[in-house]
Amino acid sequence: MTSARGRLDYGFEAELPVAYEQAVALTREALAEHGFGVLTEIDVRATPKKKLDVEFRPYVILGACNPPIAHRALTGELPIGLLLPCNVIVYAGDRPGTSVVAVVDPVVHLGVSGRDELKPLALEVRDLLGQVLERVRAGAADTTKTPEEK
Amino acid sequence: MTSARGRLDYGFEAELPVAYEQAVALTREALAEHGFGVLTEIDVRATPKKKLDVEFRPYVILGACNPPIAHRALTGELPIGLLLPCNVIVYAGDRPGTSVVAVVDPVVHLGVSGRDELKPLALEVRDLLGQVLERVRAGAADTTKTPEEK
Repeated sequence: MTSARGRLDYGFEAELPVAYEQAVALTREALAEHGFGVLTEIDVRATPKKKLDVEFRPYVILGACNPPIAHRALTGELPIGLLLPCNVIVYAGDRPGTSVVAVVDPVVHLGVSGRDELKPLALEVRDLLGQVLERVRAGAADTTKTPEEK
Repeated sequence: MTSARGRLDYGFEAELPVAYEQAVALTREALAEHGFGVLTEIDVRATPKKKLDVEFRPYVILGACNPPIAHRALTGELPIGLLLPCNVIVYAGDRPGTSVVAVVDPVVHLGVSGRDELKPLALEVRDLLGQVLERVRAGAADTTKTPEEK
């Protein structure tokens, strides 16, 4: 069973009935299918372990970029790189075999720029990232179905 | 001569009297001196060139992270990875031999989370990134002085 966790103040998230590694793979596939390149990747667990010697749950921050849209944003507002790319995160859930995927809300995120002319573009990215989230959610639900249910 | 460009709605920037490559080097040094690791790096020019076959000015997005502070943020608000790391950008200025460096304002950037308890931490990062900007500005001014002025 997939349960939506719903809306954050600054993004959208979904709880998935699959383990972390599978959730990451589904997320990468869905991003590629919707025209996003993954330009950056941060293994959140690796950094505190190395620098602070503390443990953290499996957690990745993927910096997703749709090149034509990013190019339009930068052409209109040069310093907008301060707010790019749009992050998609995946982390292990509290219960074994579950994980959480979340996408930033570009309307909120880019909204701090105070540039109203970026809003249509932010809405476009929000729509695309919403489709990514739905695709991941559906893919995760699908993998947990029995052959009869499929 | 260094002229401050001042405040963006969502960051702080400075125009530097040095070329892009030198500005990037000064920025990397200043980040390291102030406890920031560079976790991600996007060569903005490379992406549109490869994907869209358009030219863009030299421009880099550095994802800066202070590990102890990031760890505190993630411990308090798990999905805050949607807004990490804090970006520092450097791009070539309109006039040859000049460049612009800018740092995101973490108070604005993390403020969209609606989590007031992150504010002290955001202020701490803002202070550190402000010091980074000052260090880059001073370093750039220093390289343009004649030996007598130093």
